[in-house]
Amino acid sequence: MSLLVVGSVAFDAIESPHGKVDRTLGGAATYFSVAASFFTHVNLVGVVGDDFSDQDAAIFAGRKIDISGLERAPGKSFFWAGRYNENLNERVTLATELNVFGEFNPRLPEKFRSSKHIFLANIDATLQRSVLLQIKGKPHLVALDTMNYWIERAPLELREILRHAHILMINDAETRQLSNEHNLLRAARHIFTLGPKTLVVKRGEYGAMMVDRNGVFCVPAFPLEEPQDPTGAGDSFAGGFMGYLASGKAPNDAALRRAMVYGSVMGSFAVERFGLERLRHLKRREIVQRARHFARLTQFRL
Amino acid sequence: MSLLVVGSVAFDAIESPHGKVDRTLGGAATYFSVAASFFTHVNLVGVVGDDFSDQDAAIFAGRKIDISGLERAPGKSFFWAGRYNENLNERVTLATELNVFGEFNPRLPEKFRSSKHIFLANIDATLQRSVLLQIKGKPHLVALDTMNYWIERAPLELREILRHAHILMINDAETRQLSNEHNLLRAARHIFTLGPKTLVVKRGEYGAMMVDRNGVFCVPAFPLEEPQDPTGAGDSFAGGFMGYLASGKAPNDAALRRAMVYGSVMGSFAVERFGLERLRHLKRREIVQRARHFARLTQFRL
Repeated sequence: MSLLVVGSVAFDAIESPHGKVDRTLGGAATYFSVAASFFTHVNLVGVVGDDFSDQDAAIFAGRKIDISGLERAPGKSFFWAGRYNENLNERVTLATELNVFGEFNPRLPEKFRSSKHIFLANIDATLQRSVLLQIKGKPHLVALDTMNYWIERAPLELREILRHAHILMINDAETRQLSNEHNLLRAARHIFTLGPKTLVVKRGEYGAMMVDRNGVFCVPAFPLEEPQDPTGAGDSFAGGFMGYLASGKAPNDAALRRAMVYGSVMGSFAVERFGLERLRHLKRREIVQRARHFARLTQFRL
Repeated sequence: MSLLVVGSVAFDAIESPHGKVDRTLGGAATYFSVAASFFTHVNLVGVVGDDFSDQDAAIFAGRKIDISGLERAPGKSFFWAGRYNENLNERVTLATELNVFGEFNPRLPEKFRSSKHIFLANIDATLQRSVLLQIKGKPHLVALDTMNYWIERAPLELREILRHAHILMINDAETRQLSNEHNLLRAARHIFTLGPKTLVVKRGEYGAMMVDRNGVFCVPAFPLEEPQDPTGAGDSFAGGFMGYLASGKAPNDAALRRAMVYGSVMGSFAVERFGLERLRHLKRREIVQRARHFARLTQFRL
């Protein structure tokens, strides 16, 4: 089954203590689709400007990614610049230039409209809603990301799209802000009243936590001696998570747990190098190996 | 096999958003020995003042805890007062009155000197060393706790005792301070050069992480909707961890992993109520149940 993702395709300028790049392909939909394409076919919907070259598009070529929904508009692509602190756990945004992304109005190619697995990356909640309205029939699984901007500026629109989402996949600060609860269990209970029946909390260097009616499942972050660039880690996590589920597995508890592990695997690779560098050269067998390593990291027998 | 613990027995005044107690029995050796006594016999060495009553000693009665090494000195017992913030992840110390603990000079009763499992709770590194010098023969396992005060004020003394410790069990801030490394893997590698071959990092609401030559093992914190008082969580963790290992298990990788789980189990119970309230009424079967719950929290099949 193929997996639809709608979100940003961007150029990033990134500084970390481990280096600096002035312009590298990024954006939530890019990280997501590259990560997910190791597991399933991905249909990408986004917008780029006329600065997006064939060379940029090469990242999608030879992968199971259909970019016929990647609109090209006159103007420049979304641009983001940021700098990470020494420990990579904080960042400052140096520039956000929406450019053509500011006018983004997602239009799904006809062949994408029967998608059963959908990931709505972090964009305007109204646009996330408009994507779902273009879907024919009832999707199996809709997962949603959002951020503080929409939680603060568009609470009603966010509530509307949340009613239609099965899985909310956000970080811990967003979880606390949306629910007005510090405790993540109580936060999850609040979020369940808004629509989603599963909450996936991304906690950076502390891993990820899933809460649903089956209880709680935790995966640590993969211990790396020298992560270089956290950009795209959360979207790569989402790509591994949704890619695994869209590859034909019934989303039962065991499959959701594996999805959490594959999400963590893809997030851990993403941070090893700048931008998409590591995912670009990743091999399927490395994914399998790292998933086994996650087992060694967490498994015990009483 | 019995387990020796040397550390503080104190009275605590605790404020949290969930309540307030003016004077409750606490101290590292108290939490440790009550937690460990569910797994093995514990020999406690510490000092209390003449304000320590038979009623206070009742917590140890009926448990496998030998308090013949609990010295009674003229004066008042160690007193600590602290207040936790709303989310229980920060605290301010309101008072620290060392009292008789300021003159503490641990003397091991003869029958304690052949102990094979030893936990040196957070006290002066020189005293930790003097405890080991009283031990006859070679102990199987020496675990050590310390804190920022000793890392800053007694670095040479701390280095000396570290040479004789198998396991260092500290929190993440202490790990980073001692090693001058933010990254916990690099921090562990540094600490291994100082003596310990196993590092256990206590990470509060994020659980615990063990690093040794077998690699890394992570356990999340048990998700609780309403923890009340984090006081003693780390010492209860240490009690569960060392108690399990001292109960006759060879400290191989599988046993160390289980020790991490039982440590987390005991820490999670400790925070559920104020002071020792929860541990005091804990049943063995609740420990077994919660350990199984930790399995559900973390286990997956690829």
